[in-house]
Amino acid sequence: MRHCGGVDEVKTIRLDVAYDGTDFHGWQRQPGLRTVQGVLEAGLAAVLAEPAGLAGAGRTDAGVHARGQVASFRTGTTLPARAIAARLGRQLPRDLAVVDAREAAEDFHARHSARARRYTYRLLDRPDVLWARFAWRPRRGFDPERLTAACTVLEGRHDCAAFQAAGAAIRGTECRVHRASWRRWESGWMLEVVADRFLYHMVRNIVGTALKVVGAADPAHAMRVVLESRARERAGPPAPPQGLCLEQVFYAEESA
Amino acid sequence: MRHCGGVDEVKTIRLDVAYDGTDFHGWQRQPGLRTVQGVLEAGLAAVLAEPAGLAGAGRTDAGVHARGQVASFRTGTTLPARAIAARLGRQLPRDLAVVDAREAAEDFHARHSARARRYTYRLLDRPDVLWARFAWRPRRGFDPERLTAACTVLEGRHDCAAFQAAGAAIRGTECRVHRASWRRWESGWMLEVVADRFLYHMVRNIVGTALKVVGAADPAHAMRVVLESRARERAGPPAPPQGLCLEQVFYAEESA
Repeated sequence: MRHCGGVDEVKTIRLDVAYDGTDFHGWQRQPGLRTVQGVLEAGLAAVLAEPAGLAGAGRTDAGVHARGQVASFRTGTTLPARAIAARLGRQLPRDLAVVDAREAAEDFHARHSARARRYTYRLLDRPDVLWARFAWRPRRGFDPERLTAACTVLEGRHDCAAFQAAGAAIRGTECRVHRASWRRWESGWMLEVVADRFLYHMVRNIVGTALKVVGAADPAHAMRVVLESRARERAGPPAPPQGLCLEQVFYAEESA
Repeated sequence: MRHCGGVDEVKTIRLDVAYDGTDFHGWQRQPGLRTVQGVLEAGLAAVLAEPAGLAGAGRTDAGVHARGQVASFRTGTTLPARAIAARLGRQLPRDLAVVDAREAAEDFHARHSARARRYTYRLLDRPDVLWARFAWRPRRGFDPERLTAACTVLEGRHDCAAFQAAGAAIRGTECRVHRASWRRWESGWMLEVVADRFLYHMVRNIVGTALKVVGAADPAHAMRVVLESRARERAGPPAPPQGLCLEQVFYAEESA
């Protein structure tokens, strides 16, 4: 029991975290499984001597990585954010790191306050053991210019139902895609997608579809047909999780 | 027993292999430890139904990676090199891959025939969980231009005794350094060293020394003083193994 002599001061803390998702069963807490949220909450409970329920900006799947995941929680602790981060950091395993911690506006919520997210998906164009955990090598080769032509079609406001995993129960499938572009990285090509929201498996389905339409006579047209069909079965199979990384979450300045 | 009706046809096979060294106790076979050579030889013995003794171009330490390690062995098998690679590949764990396999000149020897090797060492200039296994983040920041000035001094033919691990028993310490240069990579700066031979811990000692002299008034002069001293105690401490990768081995065209 805390005795503060008056009104409890409850504050909101924002944590920026990064993880190698290979050995996690995704973000979301699940009984008996090693998840990012589970490991973070257990660490926080030890640091704060009180349970802390985390909200995460992106509920990444098993095998998906994050360099810029954001989580928030409310706490009555008197510890400053930097001290929480330092103590928490010492408890974390090697594949999970606190990158930053700060006090946020009281009504800040990592998921609800987010305005946009940025994901990358890395394709290998040659075998590379250094990147086996973080990138995917498709069976067939691909032409980056044709991938680019296909994915540019996705920029703008669209109903993205075709890219939502079958059986997902998210209400509404309209997304504003600010960017969907490919660029070269050390061992292949990387898709970068910035959007206000992401449907379940959306980036992985976009990658699978891009690789499906890349061989069409007109990849941009073929992608447009899939998008406008709003039909999951027209899209390609999802690319595997290890190529995907949540890079950044964007907030309105005043709230983060 | 093989019965070939006449003289046994013995051929030399060259294997190009890549590995994530994190979970290996280095290249060299050691009883009871998981090493790259040990895992490859066990796989080859199963494929060839005869023991195969591998020669490796670079005897990488525990935690050191390779994208372009080369190994060779002599065998009487009738299997072509590509079939050996395919069968071996299916037996290998996820962190070890056969990149290429081919028949080499009969007198080819992965280590003795090598003319030069190329290593990289990656420094992080920001935390990056995707690269924690493959790069090192020094405690202090560093100025890449000053690192470059220091390491350029190493190019040429020199006695590199100052960069040889204490207690190493390699005869002769003269090396011809073809290149020692820094360049930008995704999350930091990378040293690339090409030399005809490498003393024990040489690249890691060069990195440690570069980071030691980077704060000197004249880093190039400070590096030259260390080099010319030929004294291990004047150099910096070795950088940790995880940043190091054997990228490539060079052979005279006719032998490889």
